[in-house]
Amino acid sequence: MSLDPARLVPMANAIRALSMDAVQAANSGHPGMPMGMADVATVLWSKYLKFDPGAPAWADRDRFVLSAGHGSMLIYSLLHLSGYAAPTIDDIRNFRQLGSPCAGHPENFLLDAVECTTGPLGQGLAMAVGMAMAERHLNAVFGDELVDHRTWVVAGDGCLMEGINHEAIGLAGHLKLGRMIVLWDDNNITIDGGTDLSTSEDIKARYAATGWHVAECDGHDFGDIERAIDEALADERPSLVACRTVIGKGAPNKQGTSATHGAPLGEDEIAAARETLGWEHGPFVIPDDILSDWRATGESGKAAHGEWRDRLGASPNKAEFTRRMAGELAEDFQLDNYIQSLMKEPQKVATRKASEMALTHVNTYLPETIGGSADLTGSNNTKAGGIEPFTAANYAGRYVYYGIREFGMAAAMNGMALHGGVIPYGGTFLVFTDYARGAIRLSALQQARVIYVMTHDSIGLGEDGPTHQPVEHLASLRAMPNLLVMRPCDAVETAECWALALEQTDRPTVLALSRQGLPQVRNAPDETDQCRYGAYRLKRAGNAHKVTLIATGSEVHVALETAEKLEREGVGASVVSMVCTELFDEQDAAYRADMLPADTLKVSVEAGATFGWERYTGTDGLNIGLDRFGASAPADDLFEKFGFTADAIVPQIMNKLKD
Amino acid sequence: MSLDPARLVPMANAIRALSMDAVQAANSGHPGMPMGMADVATVLWSKYLKFDPGAPAWADRDRFVLSAGHGSMLIYSLLHLSGYAAPTIDDIRNFRQLGSPCAGHPENFLLDAVECTTGPLGQGLAMAVGMAMAERHLNAVFGDELVDHRTWVVAGDGCLMEGINHEAIGLAGHLKLGRMIVLWDDNNITIDGGTDLSTSEDIKARYAATGWHVAECDGHDFGDIERAIDEALADERPSLVACRTVIGKGAPNKQGTSATHGAPLGEDEIAAARETLGWEHGPFVIPDDILSDWRATGESGKAAHGEWRDRLGASPNKAEFTRRMAGELAEDFQLDNYIQSLMKEPQKVATRKASEMALTHVNTYLPETIGGSADLTGSNNTKAGGIEPFTAANYAGRYVYYGIREFGMAAAMNGMALHGGVIPYGGTFLVFTDYARGAIRLSALQQARVIYVMTHDSIGLGEDGPTHQPVEHLASLRAMPNLLVMRPCDAVETAECWALALEQTDRPTVLALSRQGLPQVRNAPDETDQCRYGAYRLKRAGNAHKVTLIATGSEVHVALETAEKLEREGVGASVVSMVCTELFDEQDAAYRADMLPADTLKVSVEAGATFGWERYTGTDGLNIGLDRFGASAPADDLFEKFGFTADAIVPQIMNKLKD
Repeated sequence: MSLDPARLVPMANAIRALSMDAVQAANSGHPGMPMGMADVATVLWSKYLKFDPGAPAWADRDRFVLSAGHGSMLIYSLLHLSGYAAPTIDDIRNFRQLGSPCAGHPENFLLDAVECTTGPLGQGLAMAVGMAMAERHLNAVFGDELVDHRTWVVAGDGCLMEGINHEAIGLAGHLKLGRMIVLWDDNNITIDGGTDLSTSEDIKARYAATGWHVAECDGHDFGDIERAIDEALADERPSLVACRTVIGKGAPNKQGTSATHGAPLGEDEIAAARETLGWEHGPFVIPDDILSDWRATGESGKAAHGEWRDRLGASPNKAEFTRRMAGELAEDFQLDNYIQSLMKEPQKVATRKASEMALTHVNTYLPETIGGSADLTGSNNTKAGGIEPFTAANYAGRYVYYGIREFGMAAAMNGMALHGGVIPYGGTFLVFTDYARGAIRLSALQQARVIYVMTHDSIGLGEDGPTHQPVEHLASLRAMPNLLVMRPCDAVETAECWALALEQTDRPTVLALSRQGLPQVRNAPDETDQCRYGAYRLKRAGNAHKVTLIATGSEVHVALETAEKLEREGVGASVVSMVCTELFDEQDAAYRADMLPADTLKVSVEAGATFGWERYTGTDGLNIGLDRFGASAPADDLFEKFGFTADAIVPQIMNKLKD
Repeated sequence: MSLDPARLVPMANAIRALSMDAVQAANSGHPGMPMGMADVATVLWSKYLKFDPGAPAWADRDRFVLSAGHGSMLIYSLLHLSGYAAPTIDDIRNFRQLGSPCAGHPENFLLDAVECTTGPLGQGLAMAVGMAMAERHLNAVFGDELVDHRTWVVAGDGCLMEGINHEAIGLAGHLKLGRMIVLWDDNNITIDGGTDLSTSEDIKARYAATGWHVAECDGHDFGDIERAIDEALADERPSLVACRTVIGKGAPNKQGTSATHGAPLGEDEIAAARETLGWEHGPFVIPDDILSDWRATGESGKAAHGEWRDRLGASPNKAEFTRRMAGELAEDFQLDNYIQSLMKEPQKVATRKASEMALTHVNTYLPETIGGSADLTGSNNTKAGGIEPFTAANYAGRYVYYGIREFGMAAAMNGMALHGGVIPYGGTFLVFTDYARGAIRLSALQQARVIYVMTHDSIGLGEDGPTHQPVEHLASLRAMPNLLVMRPCDAVETAECWALALEQTDRPTVLALSRQGLPQVRNAPDETDQCRYGAYRLKRAGNAHKVTLIATGSEVHVALETAEKLEREGVGASVVSMVCTELFDEQDAAYRADMLPADTLKVSVEAGATFGWERYTGTDGLNIGLDRFGASAPADDLFEKFGFTADAIVPQIMNKLKD
């Protein structure tokens, strides 16, 4: 297929017109990027991108990621023009208005054809790395006939300045993800002004140093764009294509300046742009011939999709491939037998070790898991079940050595989960959720099944000291919408949490796991599947019920010891294991009231910030926690020092009861 | 001065011996790095580092940052051997034990000579960038005679893989911070194994691409180390010196492997190492001759310090320089007059704009402020008071264009604050505290006066949508120890918050500021300095007091409207502006009870997660908040949709009162 500039020019101008008009109508938004990258996107869509507008969920489509998400009108224009059912022209008219799927930044949960939510800079590119990893893995498992697609990224200067960019391209270069191509909108402009205000980097040299192929082109010369993309396709490495563009191209007085970046052009400039571009049509009007050319861009993809569907139909792997892409767990998957074995032979192990034990079963029965760690494999206990490393030489492997790249790992996991066909999990220390937090938020916002294996979950990690001891992290993660934070107290709860996390098709889970060994507190074969309720009673009061102890993770056994001492003093005390506050909050009022009876003193025990615990204890309860940074010492010394022992807690409760 | 290998060998081995013995005694820690970098550190200390062991706070000392903080025994050994008062040999014996200043990772608040807390990888290097910036700025202001020192960093492969490394070196390269030298412990080992497990990057080429000078040396050849450092000193760019080392050098069976990274060597291997090194002395024994050679390393620094003291004594700038380095505010600094002018002419402005207005005064009266923004200058309103850009051509400037580098900015601000002599503030959107969170935590842990100007603090930012709308961020930051989170409601409160933030010499502040305009609710000239109490009563109940509304920031005026409507229905309602929960928690019980009377219905109103608000409302109160992600639409539509209007709130209160 050869590209005809006479057709491409108006096609690209259609993007420019929709973008400037939609931003103007909304009186807010970013016209500069879509206008600048319109030519590149038109070439990509016309010749290279494999897509079927009628089937945005087609498994073998190319993935297109608008990492510079503020330029959202670019993707909305492309999707509408090329014939996707959504967004409609009315959706675009309502850009940035309540209820429109054309949100300020592209949201994967509002439009089927938006692969991922972008806007937080750098993360789109980093998620694309995960998509490219998932593609290569599934290709290795299912072959070219079912999985053979590319991942395309449009990134801006901002994406390339963010630290996550370094982590993402380091991973992609190392893993030789040659089917990933980043189209860099190289326009020398950031919000504050020229890029020379803040950077002097030779970006192309940096990418080359990181194992990438680098090409460049005039981003407004269709033939040159084509040449550069062909070069990228021919190279085995991942490619950066530096597309030299003029931001806001077509707006005669403002183009090339930061004035076009994040504000409407204004009526006058839009009129002038119409003249410059030779675009004689009113706002939101796309003439039939131009629309028809755009609609034709999907034809080859439609045909390819048909052929692919035939291959899938004929494939012996059809059922398994379809199951994995649908995100359904294997029918024979269960951890019940394993949990029953724990009931028979209780294990005193750290919950990070318990996680490894559960993972041995998970990884054996669920071939779609892809695990990894940000250089803490032996500490996070994430390599289990005999899975092999995922490497450039063996994409069939299922264990990723992410390196010291927490944020890059989390974003890659988002990309994998959104690509589909795999279930990613990855580990680091809980305290380093701080490094990955931007991506954890996007897991939650994007409703992605990503499982964070966060070990060393309190001062219980001991000697490494306050930089490595999470304090506020449980609270800060619980505050995040649509994220489950689970802190199991023993091997049984850990297994139940793994099963629950895998069940969550539309939200991520953080598993907070101990470094130190913990006794198994649940041993009755008929007391299973308790974590599902978020909190449950582990011990009833013996004497008249006066005190309800609510604990999580490594403090549950402390609460049990506390209850025992209280009972010896004649005070009836129940113990509730609050393994997941979010799941507990979802239970009905009767269940919640039964767990936390109104007429008892409620005492929370958790080796972390007390912030948020009043929700369960009330302001007249007692919150045993840690509202300061930790210290460096052996774990037992720290639990003693900070009062997480039954001996330290009982007197406080007795005093409180006297009040 | 020429270096004598015959003396350097035992000096370096003293570091190795102390490191392996201390880790063994603690039965935890990281011997590999100190043993590997002992030779490089010995050369640095003997010939290059400007320091006076008797005066760790000497303003013009070189700054030494152990970015690879897990190798903490390197710095503890160096400080002890070279004659600092702390740590003592007993402190080292008690490495990683409760009460020892020799914590698992170096902590700036435990040892005077530890410039910054390190351990979270990459951040030491990024803080060093801030130190080097502060040095050049103060040099530009006070001249070579008072400020003329270098910043040295020891970094590992982990520091160089972290994304923040990219941001930090991009900034340093752009700003041409030639007095910064990074000694990279190039040992090809990470925790998981060889670096080739996870990276294929040409690090030296990447640094070169980012505007750095690059040298390399055999990290175990004293002469070669000297040559490489001399090269670095001769170059005007910041320098990376790749020191090829063997991790755990000296441990004959384990060196060069990840086994030496993070675990004691074991008694047998330590005995073998003693033999290999020819170290015949018992644990923690340093022979007098070796100690004497080490003590001599501080002599030239002592002399230089004496000369510097003379220059300071003779300097006309002595008082101002001393004031700034002591972190004291100028005596004539106050915002009272400005606040009184607001009382006379109330301003309806966004609090981000109010922040700019306050900053105009701050920057005029406090020459030590250094502001900036991560490429959102016009949105964060951080450039005020006529300050000029801080650039490679003008280090006297006080405004930093940080670029799209939130994490790098925050870490650089930590470095500046810890260097002393400047007070850094910097802006981005509140939602992007997620990107910078690792450094915000280090501001708090290190007790650093850093002021975060975080604008667009709620769904009130409007059309950009959920990726840009903070929801859980206020709660997640409030959970962090030693951090003040202030959310002022108008121009008066914003000015008071700025004054308070500047007063905090030992903790950071987050100012959460609105994008949208807010009415000035405090106009009485005698009602000043209220924010100091964290919360205060803005409106008393007219009718019998039934309801206490507690609001922050942009919801305070909504609470006032709500109270007005309630009063019209005969319900007495007071309004408390809870501008800073942490400061309120520090007030005495009587004050707190007076603000939040026990017998009233307490209602929190904040456009963010309700998590944590039960602390003030109790479980029988009402929490008006947002426990989901936001949406893309104009701000007014969102406030309406999510119920942050008096009309939506009043009925909920009336219902609750009926219960």
